[in-house]
Amino acid sequence: MLRTRTCGELTGSSCGQEVILCGWVARRRDHGKLIFIDLRDRYGFTQVVFIPKESKDAYSLAQDLRSEFVIKLKGIVNKRPQGTINPKMPTGEIEVLASELEILNTSASLPFEIIDDLDVTEEIRLKYRYLDLRREKVLNNIILRSRLYQVIRGYLDSKGFLECETPLLTKSTPEGARDYLVPSRLNPGQFYALPQSPQLFKQILMVAGIEKYYQIAKCFRDEDLRADRQPEFTQLDLEISFVNEEDIYSLIEELLFKIFKDLKGLELKLPFARLTFKEAQEKYKTDKPDMRPELKSEFAFAWIVDFPLFKYNEEEKHWESEHHPFTAPAKEDLDKLENSPDKVNSRSYDLVLNGVELGSGSIRIHSPELQKKIFKIIGITPEEAKKRFGFLLEAFKFGAPPHGGFAFGIDRLIAILTGEQSIREVITFPKTSAGICPLTCAPSDVDSKQLKELNLTVKIKSCGNMSR
Amino acid sequence: MLRTRTCGELTGSSCGQEVILCGWVARRRDHGKLIFIDLRDRYGFTQVVFIPKESKDAYSLAQDLRSEFVIKLKGIVNKRPQGTINPKMPTGEIEVLASELEILNTSASLPFEIIDDLDVTEEIRLKYRYLDLRREKVLNNIILRSRLYQVIRGYLDSKGFLECETPLLTKSTPEGARDYLVPSRLNPGQFYALPQSPQLFKQILMVAGIEKYYQIAKCFRDEDLRADRQPEFTQLDLEISFVNEEDIYSLIEELLFKIFKDLKGLELKLPFARLTFKEAQEKYKTDKPDMRPELKSEFAFAWIVDFPLFKYNEEEKHWESEHHPFTAPAKEDLDKLENSPDKVNSRSYDLVLNGVELGSGSIRIHSPELQKKIFKIIGITPEEAKKRFGFLLEAFKFGAPPHGGFAFGIDRLIAILTGEQSIREVITFPKTSAGICPLTCAPSDVDSKQLKELNLTVKIKSCGNMSR
Repeated sequence: MLRTRTCGELTGSSCGQEVILCGWVARRRDHGKLIFIDLRDRYGFTQVVFIPKESKDAYSLAQDLRSEFVIKLKGIVNKRPQGTINPKMPTGEIEVLASELEILNTSASLPFEIIDDLDVTEEIRLKYRYLDLRREKVLNNIILRSRLYQVIRGYLDSKGFLECETPLLTKSTPEGARDYLVPSRLNPGQFYALPQSPQLFKQILMVAGIEKYYQIAKCFRDEDLRADRQPEFTQLDLEISFVNEEDIYSLIEELLFKIFKDLKGLELKLPFARLTFKEAQEKYKTDKPDMRPELKSEFAFAWIVDFPLFKYNEEEKHWESEHHPFTAPAKEDLDKLENSPDKVNSRSYDLVLNGVELGSGSIRIHSPELQKKIFKIIGITPEEAKKRFGFLLEAFKFGAPPHGGFAFGIDRLIAILTGEQSIREVITFPKTSAGICPLTCAPSDVDSKQLKELNLTVKIKSCGNMSR
Repeated sequence: MLRTRTCGELTGSSCGQEVILCGWVARRRDHGKLIFIDLRDRYGFTQVVFIPKESKDAYSLAQDLRSEFVIKLKGIVNKRPQGTINPKMPTGEIEVLASELEILNTSASLPFEIIDDLDVTEEIRLKYRYLDLRREKVLNNIILRSRLYQVIRGYLDSKGFLECETPLLTKSTPEGARDYLVPSRLNPGQFYALPQSPQLFKQILMVAGIEKYYQIAKCFRDEDLRADRQPEFTQLDLEISFVNEEDIYSLIEELLFKIFKDLKGLELKLPFARLTFKEAQEKYKTDKPDMRPELKSEFAFAWIVDFPLFKYNEEEKHWESEHHPFTAPAKEDLDKLENSPDKVNSRSYDLVLNGVELGSGSIRIHSPELQKKIFKIIGITPEEAKKRFGFLLEAFKFGAPPHGGFAFGIDRLIAILTGEQSIREVITFPKTSAGICPLTCAPSDVDSKQLKELNLTVKIKSCGNMSR
């Protein structure tokens, strides 16, 4: 490495050591005979002093330093003079007296300062996301995200889960939202779809005997974007065979306990509260109740259970699945399916945190006959079922085990953990609510040659976004 | 859970215990008064015995069992009679005498047997991938993949790397291969592209000050598929700031040491051999030499270094980048750039294993001026550079640190670790060489409504693939 130490680690006990540091010039103060800079890297800030007596060359070069120049310097760690010690900084006890300085790169004037209290539009922040990410607050969100991933994986790995990848170029099987389509050049006129979730594949993995699957999965939905939606988002997706609701509840509760303990130092109270859908509606007039006592305590989790299996679509005059059509009905309600579908509860469950739905799941149907019966009730014809989910129904013929699972949105969870209002604050390179990436200007025009190879014609002339 | 134990764990010391097992019927032998089944789950096989004396009901139901039925049973673990102990099976010492049996699901007749020595076409295997995955050999590949991921992440996490996600819906910036395009409904006539690699984003992350980034990333290339290519593949992608070649070499060597130790019990010899491109060409007539002494020892790694920065395209009469245009030239060759580009070495490196290129990387250019000079030499005009990589060049203006990185193909590494010839053996749901998924029949026709919403017309009428 070009450096021997980082800017976050030097303390009083390092005094007298010669170190090489690399980083960005966060601040420069020129006191005439004395130049101070705050040097920043991922790990923190270190104060560096240049004086002509120590090195004329370094002092002279230091006069050229400007904000966000990238430098490498050699120097001795010294205790700061009395009265200049900063107890608020981990490195506030020391400064580095520079004997050598190299400018590794310069920087143009910045469109905004690298400070936490920033007053520019989100569009500007995202256009210069690489500068925005240098801010401590945003960096900390990204660090927490990385730590969260390791906690989740470590926990599920210890529980015997296999991390399996499912395809991103897959079949269009509308699940409520629109699919993003990907034209296939090798199969003209045909399209892959990006998955709205790995739902069908994780059920297939249970048929395959994987028994415990998880994946931190990218999901894609082409929706009219609302304030806090992203065209691509990240989901913790898991599925288990030979499982009951209680197994899922305690697995997820333990996982969240570990997450909040490791990342926030908080011990959640287990088990989480549990309300039936009916209780939630009666008591809170919502199925996403905020159960904080007078909204005081920080994190109030609750399971919402016993959802109805169906809801009636008044407009189209037919029954629909409340969750999704693979959700199992409650065992004790099986005999009501045909005559009283409104009285059938489902084996699905939502996890709610402070009034926000964090995730949901269900025990699935594993019997092809029951699955067909459900399709019939919600008006999916055998032909349509075959077209949309044929490969799953086919798989179910060959010894599908009882199974169930859960999924929760990672972006929302991190936003809650970091106290951010918007999930865009916890995504490395988010898109705006119009689905645009101000950094890369995606989506964009493509060469007509590319479209020709795909046998595609665009009917509307692109309005262009060159100005972005 | 529906079960108390798995089929892989019962040994002599479990004798006398009452257990509940779930799994698939792998084999049934009816000896008249005695029915044996081999019960399989993800963890192994357990022999189960049904006799009328123990339970008439269970015995009677056991007569209905067929291959791949899913069952749940209760029974007592017994030591097998002398002479019937199977020392080759972990559970070969015991059998479970069943007192209760429940058929959780039946199975239709199988298109092929669940055995390792399978003699059916790959197309059939992939169409019924959920059955194929029940085979021990394929399951073990998937298990190894999951373990590999945990080893890689654990190691890089311990080294201070942050796992960052980069967008999958991004800008079309052709990198040699064709992009997969994704039409944007909200921005008519414009397209996202799926990333060929996170190359530009990982460099942006270095500009952002992340310093140590990694990701197990999905990459997409719309190529004319050769035997062992996939439209989507998985890559370990990493990038480091303030780094030299030697830091990358030792990081990757240690990582591979850990992988081979943890997953194969092998201790690789470090450091790996190192050859210059010229030496490799002279001695082995290739830049991917197989350096196994007489092809005997199992794993012979080598770094190939000192590649030329450019190669001359005889057809189009101009210089091209040998690696990619962001690769830094060797410091000592900087003055030859303009007059003798053929004499300039690069700071790129390939890692070769047994004659296969496992991965590659380079120290990158971080100076906008040098980057412009390189573009000029390889004939990329400023306009074209701006169009293709404008956001990276813009980012480089604001204090880009020196940085470099590496990437290797995960699918190929797992194939090598498991001794498989084809990467399709180590991918959960691979596609054929025509880019088709025989399980889901992706890619497929889509509703005209979907195309209309995207303002797209397909010029060639789809030939359909309903027969698949």
